[in-house]
Amino acid sequence: MLILKGNIISSPKFGELSIVEHGYLISDVEGKIIGVFSTLPKEYDGKEVKDYGDKLIMQSFSDMHLHAPQYPMLGMGMDLQLIDWLNTYTFPTEANFKDNDLARKIYHRLALELIKNGTTRVAMFSSLHKEATLILMDELEKAGVCGYVGKVNMDRNGGVDLEETTEESIKSTNEWLKECKFTHVKPIITPRFTPSCTNELMEELGKIAKEHDLPIQSHLSENTGEIAWVKELHPDCKEYWETYKKYNLWNDKTLMAHCVHSSLKERTAMKDAGVYVVHCAASNNNLISGVAPIKLMKKEGLRVVLGSDIAGGDQLSMFDVVASTIKASKNRDIMDKWESGFLSVEEAYYLGTSAANSFFNEKEGFAKGNKLHCLVLDDSDLVSVRPLSVKERFERSMYLREKDAIKAVISDGRIVYNI
Amino acid sequence: MLILKGNIISSPKFGELSIVEHGYLISDVEGKIIGVFSTLPKEYDGKEVKDYGDKLIMQSFSDMHLHAPQYPMLGMGMDLQLIDWLNTYTFPTEANFKDNDLARKIYHRLALELIKNGTTRVAMFSSLHKEATLILMDELEKAGVCGYVGKVNMDRNGGVDLEETTEESIKSTNEWLKECKFTHVKPIITPRFTPSCTNELMEELGKIAKEHDLPIQSHLSENTGEIAWVKELHPDCKEYWETYKKYNLWNDKTLMAHCVHSSLKERTAMKDAGVYVVHCAASNNNLISGVAPIKLMKKEGLRVVLGSDIAGGDQLSMFDVVASTIKASKNRDIMDKWESGFLSVEEAYYLGTSAANSFFNEKEGFAKGNKLHCLVLDDSDLVSVRPLSVKERFERSMYLREKDAIKAVISDGRIVYNI
Repeated sequence: MLILKGNIISSPKFGELSIVEHGYLISDVEGKIIGVFSTLPKEYDGKEVKDYGDKLIMQSFSDMHLHAPQYPMLGMGMDLQLIDWLNTYTFPTEANFKDNDLARKIYHRLALELIKNGTTRVAMFSSLHKEATLILMDELEKAGVCGYVGKVNMDRNGGVDLEETTEESIKSTNEWLKECKFTHVKPIITPRFTPSCTNELMEELGKIAKEHDLPIQSHLSENTGEIAWVKELHPDCKEYWETYKKYNLWNDKTLMAHCVHSSLKERTAMKDAGVYVVHCAASNNNLISGVAPIKLMKKEGLRVVLGSDIAGGDQLSMFDVVASTIKASKNRDIMDKWESGFLSVEEAYYLGTSAANSFFNEKEGFAKGNKLHCLVLDDSDLVSVRPLSVKERFERSMYLREKDAIKAVISDGRIVYNI
Repeated sequence: MLILKGNIISSPKFGELSIVEHGYLISDVEGKIIGVFSTLPKEYDGKEVKDYGDKLIMQSFSDMHLHAPQYPMLGMGMDLQLIDWLNTYTFPTEANFKDNDLARKIYHRLALELIKNGTTRVAMFSSLHKEATLILMDELEKAGVCGYVGKVNMDRNGGVDLEETTEESIKSTNEWLKECKFTHVKPIITPRFTPSCTNELMEELGKIAKEHDLPIQSHLSENTGEIAWVKELHPDCKEYWETYKKYNLWNDKTLMAHCVHSSLKERTAMKDAGVYVVHCAASNNNLISGVAPIKLMKKEGLRVVLGSDIAGGDQLSMFDVVASTIKASKNRDIMDKWESGFLSVEEAYYLGTSAANSFFNEKEGFAKGNKLHCLVLDDSDLVSVRPLSVKERFERSMYLREKDAIKAVISDGRIVYNI
């Protein structure tokens, strides 16, 4: 069990911040949160307390959309829009992951960087390679990252180097599912996106997801050119989302990245099914896709979580992703003639943390019974002309996103990083 | 003199990158650039060569708009628009700089951070305090930052704690100019912005600028509320820019920050006078001011340079400012229905470096005769699946903006940072 002492910060509700100054955050032997207390309950007298002094102890992040094999191209090739970018930079990079040694080296580094940056849960795309996907899951497990990883399925439009036959794709997926024997990292069904998957493959993936009761992740309505292409490929579907729905890839354990250009009908279909929108602010900007109307989606009652979407996004740090989310909402507000409003720091932080908890079958914030996922931040190096409140320090930490300020990371109740 | 060896990168023209792999960058005893060479000229045989191996040696940055006394509020108070933000956060923070000890402490740190981040030239706002302004100039000079600093003039609308009388403002400015005895840091006339300065003060500042042949910096057309306020204050002026022009604060050594909402007429007036637009992308986003049409301004032939505008901007690093500039141009492109285009990495880098050279009476890039301003970047820690070209490595460095990657900084031909 763990007893952490410091300024405890969590987001129990969209837009709300709970702060307990010099409080205690306690988890049990299974890593489950017992509670947050302003004074140490009697029953823990004499137990070891990890006292972090005046540091901030806050919920760590859930990065609900990122592409592991794109990590080595982070910050490159940002001069193209989606489809050209995929063909020119992304697919050739991913094709390298047929090499297991390369996968081991890159994924080892990625897993460590995630932890160092305070990301303890993920929903991640691998490449189409089964072996590399298992290596990725192994490296995440070892580093202490929890969550879901998907072997990518793509049996069309991937070019010569990054395409499977339909049969290979299904066979490889079934084998991969059998070989997934990890404790903290679980499989998720991952059709890349509609243009990458034939109807036969989509149908089979829907069946596999149902049979094994697996969650699903894909892309939706990111770019106007992509949407037009999907319409050509599926004359039977009026809207993009229907191409997933018709193959049973559309339910309350489905993550759909982007949704920049989703119509009211598409948004309603997401709401009705309980599909999660994974907002990827930096990526949508870098690839000039557009600006997703997140304020509107929240008002409409949609489930919204955040993703770094590396390497469409250029920063792995979820501090950066939270700041980018606020910035994108302000751009959207400007585009809407200052009428739609923007996300506050507390709201964006909620989206980067608590909003994903239901996907992991948990309640929001540091709720009792949740597995303990948190980070310890030392902001004492920052200058100020007056003493700052914990809330002000929290706001600065989101904007200034200094990796080195993270002093400890706890994932699933285990200390996985400590300097 | 200095002989540096490495991959030499500079921007000799808007949108152009000059790369000399494993080349030599040589400056003379006065710190002036002799040239960039692919092999060491015979005459330097036997001289000491600082060999940076495969590292990148690139032009350092010119941050042409930032507020030194706002450094201690970096990353805070981003939930308000300009005028409310000034009154709630900014003016109370600046008021603290009547305390010289506090000024010394904060400005010492700021100067070091600028150098560590590769910013070697600035055009900077101090506060209205004469003593603190001299302390700021002293700290910049000691750290090796070159450029201009302005004691801010504001004799109205500053509140009780941050306002001078007109007489005090003029007297204090004249005293300050007499006491400025620095080699690399020079004074610049700095009316805060039209709402902060009475006509009497503006008139006097125009005279002082002319008498001492000093450059000028201020703010222009940042926010629609501000523009409406200026119209109320100056019913005699049709547009904001005229309020500067009428008092002789409008010429080819004038820096005007923001210009987000400048009309064609205002833009034409800038072009005709040779006024510099200082684009502050992050600040315009954080304060929800709007998105300046930089692509359009460049097409129209305006002079555009960049500013971090801390603490409206949330990052001091000009790597971050260059990335924010690209991102803002993409947002503008989205707002313009993908019709205006966006800035390439090379274009944005030019704006953050070479574009300001004419303000310092120099040519673009590493031109012969320019003072040597450069930084040495070690990007060997980044992972990749294949060897990258120097241009690709340059692009990544702009997006990934890792402060610790800067290994040496040379300002005015002097090594001011070296780890």
